[in-house]
Amino acid sequence: MPPPSSEGTSVADVVELTKALIAAESVTPARGPVFDVLEAALRPLGFDVDRFVCGEAPDGPVENLIAVRGSGGRHLAFAGHVDVVPAGDGWTAGPFSGEERAGLIYGRGAVDMKGAVAAFVAACAQVPVDAGTLSLLITGDEEGPAVFGTRAIIDRMAERGLAPDLCLVGEPTSTGRLGDMIKIGRRGSVNIWIDVNGRQGHVAYPHLADNPVPRLVRALAEIDALILDEGTEWFQSSNLEATDLSVGNLATNVIPGRASARLSIRFNDLHRGEALVERIRAIVERHTPDAHVVGKVSGEAFLTPPGTFSTLIADAIREHTGLTPELSTTGGTSDARFLSRLCPTVEFGLLNATMHKLDEAVAVEDLRSLQAIYATLIRRALG
Amino acid sequence: MPPPSSEGTSVADVVELTKALIAAESVTPARGPVFDVLEAALRPLGFDVDRFVCGEAPDGPVENLIAVRGSGGRHLAFAGHVDVVPAGDGWTAGPFSGEERAGLIYGRGAVDMKGAVAAFVAACAQVPVDAGTLSLLITGDEEGPAVFGTRAIIDRMAERGLAPDLCLVGEPTSTGRLGDMIKIGRRGSVNIWIDVNGRQGHVAYPHLADNPVPRLVRALAEIDALILDEGTEWFQSSNLEATDLSVGNLATNVIPGRASARLSIRFNDLHRGEALVERIRAIVERHTPDAHVVGKVSGEAFLTPPGTFSTLIADAIREHTGLTPELSTTGGTSDARFLSRLCPTVEFGLLNATMHKLDEAVAVEDLRSLQAIYATLIRRALG
Repeated sequence: MPPPSSEGTSVADVVELTKALIAAESVTPARGPVFDVLEAALRPLGFDVDRFVCGEAPDGPVENLIAVRGSGGRHLAFAGHVDVVPAGDGWTAGPFSGEERAGLIYGRGAVDMKGAVAAFVAACAQVPVDAGTLSLLITGDEEGPAVFGTRAIIDRMAERGLAPDLCLVGEPTSTGRLGDMIKIGRRGSVNIWIDVNGRQGHVAYPHLADNPVPRLVRALAEIDALILDEGTEWFQSSNLEATDLSVGNLATNVIPGRASARLSIRFNDLHRGEALVERIRAIVERHTPDAHVVGKVSGEAFLTPPGTFSTLIADAIREHTGLTPELSTTGGTSDARFLSRLCPTVEFGLLNATMHKLDEAVAVEDLRSLQAIYATLIRRALG
Repeated sequence: MPPPSSEGTSVADVVELTKALIAAESVTPARGPVFDVLEAALRPLGFDVDRFVCGEAPDGPVENLIAVRGSGGRHLAFAGHVDVVPAGDGWTAGPFSGEERAGLIYGRGAVDMKGAVAAFVAACAQVPVDAGTLSLLITGDEEGPAVFGTRAIIDRMAERGLAPDLCLVGEPTSTGRLGDMIKIGRRGSVNIWIDVNGRQGHVAYPHLADNPVPRLVRALAEIDALILDEGTEWFQSSNLEATDLSVGNLATNVIPGRASARLSIRFNDLHRGEALVERIRAIVERHTPDAHVVGKVSGEAFLTPPGTFSTLIADAIREHTGLTPELSTTGGTSDARFLSRLCPTVEFGLLNATMHKLDEAVAVEDLRSLQAIYATLIRRALG
């Protein structure tokens, strides 16, 4: 059980706060009530709460929250989100009920990541106000376009002169048991669209037509044979997938005038997204000079090299669970890619087994363990 | 001007018959009135006319006509069709008006191929009834599925014991001037569908998925590099085109579970359609053993080697036009692919410049020349 804070246990109890956050339905983009719940929990703990709305349709408006307590010493930021993916049909509990059954709390966002937000808030209550600077950087759009979410928070922090020394992201990184994995980096992601033009014609008169398909196929065969790297000490090898092919020609006797492909590359920190786009463009243009190649970088790779911060987290996990976490860089992208530009950034949170699935649930025991780990971690990060 | 026949010029006049056939609107599949016009022209010339309807939806019913005159001596068959492709919008004359203007008769089917049918009928009127056996094999479905057209005619001829010695097909083979080209063969045609299956998954976890695209691309790259042959004395080289690619994956972060391609091969008489399908299947299965490869042979290649029949036609053309026709095997498929199994088959007809286009038209002069060439050709073929 958490120790009583000076503000009363009801506000900072991790289980009650998790349930209250779940009950404040907040499918992406989250606005209003779920932030009200969070603000009501933070203010009694001494946090200054700054809520602001950014952006316009289609990627906005988005609500964000920056909460800061203290102004001196070391500054630890906790980053996360209170929006959730849609619930879907078929739950055994109401997806926004926060129902507790056999030691589990059910609800959309239980592990991704309202439970972790609640654990950090409850952990703050265990730490003296004068220990250093703590901040919570909470967006209402991490599961959506994320254009006006964490990036907008970072802009606002710059305006306010807020510069954390360390950043903990509360994404659900644990896989089998709480604390078995933390993320010290993420691969980058880039999508590339390739359009090759030719001249349409009748298959019986190929000399009057120019089929773009063979040129596209030759380029793709060369691209597929690329070995981008062999991986690094901390990253698996970069991976390229052809995710779509399209010609759209219904007529069997027509040579098509256009052929397209789409690639997705997940890359480690040996690469930059734009450089990969240029590399693909060069290959494609060697086979078909007039091709149209467009890349869109969703995020660059980042790595917080193992060191003081990851050791601090690993030690806290080991003391409370007995586990030594794996330092991983696997999985998709996360908002940590933006935050890592500010300071060393590591992700650690609940079990990811039920995230985005029916009957998403968090164990009460895990919530209390996570709170305890976070509290130890805060004290040492600030101390 | 054609010489008057014993049956009267109105019935067997090539210009009047062409106009009457055009006016009997007969978009594929042709039925009824256009055959009435043809039958009314043939009966007075001594032809026995057998009209019959074959097939059911979707490829039928189709009306066909077999007209035979004489029963002894050599047997020359003329094959053709009275169905036409749709007119489309934008004509300067009514597409079924048969309007004559500045020496041209306008109308859908003018060159493809009601004009040639009329020219052959008019030529028959110039030839004595006892010269030998003449037949007209006319389908109402050459421009459509052609399942119950010429093939049904061939079946019915077999039932009736009709076996021509030579077959002239009246397709519009001339390109710049009447008589500059005849077709002594056609390439075969086969379409091949390739489906490659994999396992769908998230691009961030490629080890849990199996992308079918690289395997399809590698197979297509090898297929594209195939040299089927270098051509023959009478055929250009066989040609393969990839006419479609399809994955249908809208999500940039999803590895697709299936990828497809479609090929079209136009091949000369060094190949058989099914053997080409097997060759493609072998290549595809070497790259991806569980692929699904389906071929559909539209027609095998055929060649009527240059000889007595083509020389006879070329001589008739030269005498009436001064041109020496090129002996060609280019272009798409035609019903000659079926008829060539019965006897030496050559195609010769009007100019193809306006076929299937707006303002399809035939020169009155060409109609009269074609009738004269056909009449010479008939006399020599029978004699």
